[in-house]
Amino acid sequence: MASKKFSNVYIKDNVSIVGPLEEDGLLKNYDLTVDDYYYQEKTFEQAEIKMQQVVVDKLLEYNKLSDSRVDLLLGGDLINQISVSSYNAARFRIPFLGVYSACASYVEELIIGATFISGKLAKKVVCVTSSHNLNAERQFRYPIEYGAIKKHTTTFTTTGASATLLTNEVTNIKVESCTIGKSLDMGVKDVNNMGAVMAPAAVEVLNTHLVEMKRNINYYDLVLTGDLGLVGREIFLEMLDKVYDIRLKKYMDAGCEIYTNSQDTYAGASGPVVVPLVLFDKVLNSKKYKKILIIGTGSLQSVTMANQKLGIPGIAHAISLEVA
Amino acid sequence: MASKKFSNVYIKDNVSIVGPLEEDGLLKNYDLTVDDYYYQEKTFEQAEIKMQQVVVDKLLEYNKLSDSRVDLLLGGDLINQISVSSYNAARFRIPFLGVYSACASYVEELIIGATFISGKLAKKVVCVTSSHNLNAERQFRYPIEYGAIKKHTTTFTTTGASATLLTNEVTNIKVESCTIGKSLDMGVKDVNNMGAVMAPAAVEVLNTHLVEMKRNINYYDLVLTGDLGLVGREIFLEMLDKVYDIRLKKYMDAGCEIYTNSQDTYAGASGPVVVPLVLFDKVLNSKKYKKILIIGTGSLQSVTMANQKLGIPGIAHAISLEVA
Repeated sequence: MASKKFSNVYIKDNVSIVGPLEEDGLLKNYDLTVDDYYYQEKTFEQAEIKMQQVVVDKLLEYNKLSDSRVDLLLGGDLINQISVSSYNAARFRIPFLGVYSACASYVEELIIGATFISGKLAKKVVCVTSSHNLNAERQFRYPIEYGAIKKHTTTFTTTGASATLLTNEVTNIKVESCTIGKSLDMGVKDVNNMGAVMAPAAVEVLNTHLVEMKRNINYYDLVLTGDLGLVGREIFLEMLDKVYDIRLKKYMDAGCEIYTNSQDTYAGASGPVVVPLVLFDKVLNSKKYKKILIIGTGSLQSVTMANQKLGIPGIAHAISLEVA
Repeated sequence: MASKKFSNVYIKDNVSIVGPLEEDGLLKNYDLTVDDYYYQEKTFEQAEIKMQQVVVDKLLEYNKLSDSRVDLLLGGDLINQISVSSYNAARFRIPFLGVYSACASYVEELIIGATFISGKLAKKVVCVTSSHNLNAERQFRYPIEYGAIKKHTTTFTTTGASATLLTNEVTNIKVESCTIGKSLDMGVKDVNNMGAVMAPAAVEVLNTHLVEMKRNINYYDLVLTGDLGLVGREIFLEMLDKVYDIRLKKYMDAGCEIYTNSQDTYAGASGPVVVPLVLFDKVLNSKKYKKILIIGTGSLQSVTMANQKLGIPGIAHAISLEVA
């Protein structure tokens, strides 16, 4: 079975940081902001490592935790060999596991972290993720200096980092259950249309979750998808309706909640940091929703495989939160 | 605490495949071999995907399992965005989580899979990993056609794949406990000396395991390290002795067990597939050892970070097996 119910797993706290474009965007409650894409470092990659370090540092400081009090650090990012997370992890003395499912990495981290706590193999777990627009553009597409023309289906990688503390101590946010998604290749080959790659995986994991957990869609006050963006969101909603006859009562796509219309970010925000930014700075802050289903979505593309003209697999993982 | 004790987790079966050089090497019990580095595919990457697919297919077939009977597929490899594992996962209808800790990925998979089973969130988990010499050389170093001269400290990426079935049903191989390692940057910058990058991480995780589990080194009949190779193995043994006063009763490095001396593989074998190849085809086949501590080792390097002249973090994860 793809769905699992957790025992005694809670979200204790979260710290986020974003870059200048995000600071000028729709959300106003980020913990930290940085004006400089270099963050006083020599390279953009090192700036992204520093963003991860700062959010983990602040999370530990605010919660009066030393490294030795944390059982596990889970990290994932978009850079080859998840270097940002691996190099950041070397700045702490916390056992580290690296994960990768592209922009679904944050939800994958929550699922693995919750599994350790639920099985009584850990008490405190930190989940960290990040993305940096200029790193992702250079690695997956073109350095921005080339001035490549963008398609309207292209999403815009968000610059930021986020660290979440999971614990076995009761808080008002319970991590209730999850559904692990399957890698799904629908034959989409356009690396500039990640929404189309990810939407079918999001549809499938949502339906699997409802069937396996024996729940009606109205059980949830909100469904929050990862970073489908303006194009992927429409495909997601249409497929849900036509294939499974599911219509969402209250729905939000995190990729559509970061930037304003005038910010010229094409189909919206993407990157593994998008879900935690919107979850903590908008959804949970609003105190409007009690039962929330988060669906992290990832486009498992690589430059090597794109050059070989293969279809791109998409993946999506779901996790359910209950707010007291 | 970095160490965790599992309940009711067992290894049920394993299927391995290797390339031509490995077939001519020291071990003779591989399940499948392939003479052709392309494996009848158009590219080496697609050959590596096919190797993963074949070992998972055979593992399911031998154990009479359909996709829907497996709760979780864990995969990891060396290719950017762990594309081999992600693309292979799209060939199955099994919930998939991707992991990355370089050549320690296989042991990371065992740890996460065992955590799901121990916490009763899964009953059957498949852990798959692979590496392909020509893919790794091209991505991390130079395409072999360039004829780059190798240093004696360089290891040789093994071509092969391996899939392991973990279950909650009692078998003669119990997955007893684990210690999750920390990312450790000792300032080594030489990408051609991964043994030196990984050895300190292996030393640290072994000592942490013994301290936290309150065990003497003689508790284990065998310590099997990942792919330290000829150079890393010496550093590992010397550091263990000098820093922690630990001398191993019976020790094997998997990187030194794949190739013969005459095969011209420099400091020995590397890649995440090396540990399962030696574990199943030599260590467990011999029926000599009851208590085995496996230490998977990974060099968390990337071309991008190497070009930025940063130190390379190493990581090592330990898992303990009890053979009945």
